[in-house]
Amino acid sequence: MPDPTRRSERSRHAILTAAHELVGEVGYRKLTIEAIAARAGVGKQTIYRWWPSKGAVVLDAMLATVSDPADLALPDTGDVDADLRGVVHAIVAELADPTLSGTSRALMIEIQEDPGLAESMVERILGPNLAAIADRLRAAQDAGQLRRDLDLSVAVEMIVGPLYHRWLLRTAPLTPAYADTVTDLALRALAPDRLAPHGEDRLE
Amino acid sequence: MPDPTRRSERSRHAILTAAHELVGEVGYRKLTIEAIAARAGVGKQTIYRWWPSKGAVVLDAMLATVSDPADLALPDTGDVDADLRGVVHAIVAELADPTLSGTSRALMIEIQEDPGLAESMVERILGPNLAAIADRLRAAQDAGQLRRDLDLSVAVEMIVGPLYHRWLLRTAPLTPAYADTVTDLALRALAPDRLAPHGEDRLE
Repeated sequence: MPDPTRRSERSRHAILTAAHELVGEVGYRKLTIEAIAARAGVGKQTIYRWWPSKGAVVLDAMLATVSDPADLALPDTGDVDADLRGVVHAIVAELADPTLSGTSRALMIEIQEDPGLAESMVERILGPNLAAIADRLRAAQDAGQLRRDLDLSVAVEMIVGPLYHRWLLRTAPLTPAYADTVTDLALRALAPDRLAPHGEDRLE
Repeated sequence: MPDPTRRSERSRHAILTAAHELVGEVGYRKLTIEAIAARAGVGKQTIYRWWPSKGAVVLDAMLATVSDPADLALPDTGDVDADLRGVVHAIVAELADPTLSGTSRALMIEIQEDPGLAESMVERILGPNLAAIADRLRAAQDAGQLRRDLDLSVAVEMIVGPLYHRWLLRTAPLTPAYADTVTDLALRALAPDRLAPHGEDRLE
């Protein structure tokens, strides 16, 4: 007797794989539930039973490619500059990859007009990624390498904001050299005041 | 005898006004050329004769609301901190306005999958706005208030990037307080090294 749970799992996996492939091939706008269903070998109704919208399928397709949240942690070599440079270069590489960036652009589009999807994307993808960077900054703070009075959620967006700005608004190509300059400037903003005695921040 | 040029101008104006109103009312995704034509009192073909796509109409609708490029210039009160704060607060206010932000989100969506439109948006809207900020930073550099070795195009994105990141990725509400913290950090990044003698940057 066929196992319905296993069959569901197989269908779900086939749908997410099809969605991921198709968004890379045809772009989000031309992607249809029909095309996903056809490639996955399931009926359209199977997709609609599990997901409320195209955006929701694509979000899950993206999550399926994301590794364990524990793997998001940045290395802590003691050198916050080097550790941050690793993560910004990884972001640049990811956004240069046609399939990954196709899916990311697709979700960016979708969350502009679907605040519910935006919330779920922030909670499940963006938030954990930004929190991993904030954790590394907190460790650097504890080591006296960064100012103590930082709002870390803002500090993280000082690093990744200029990267996404360039990529999303297409002001210029997003290059590793740009990411390095952004990291240099951000670290200068986050560094303790060099005139301060005993590593304490100077009161201004 | 009716003047065909004046009639064209009137139609063009009616189409852009209709596009601007409708994108604020129904959102970009639900906006159709048919609806724009109906509200403007013209035929669909009139729109297609002048614009290749919905995105192109909306871009022109947005440009029609933008003032003269000369008006983009930031004030120069001699206080770069205050002058930048004026512009970041204006950006926050603009992105909080439902109609303006509806149009901006619409164009953000469209440029994700239409690099030609992106190029024209960068050239006609974004570029002049960023250049106006860069000009103010250059004056501050000349006044010795900012480091001399800055890439001003990156410096500008250190200020506006974190604002658009929060707004586009919906990581948290875009507030004036956030814009102030971003401005504080960016100015700290761009400031000359305080240990440097004679106002020169210290070599590192």
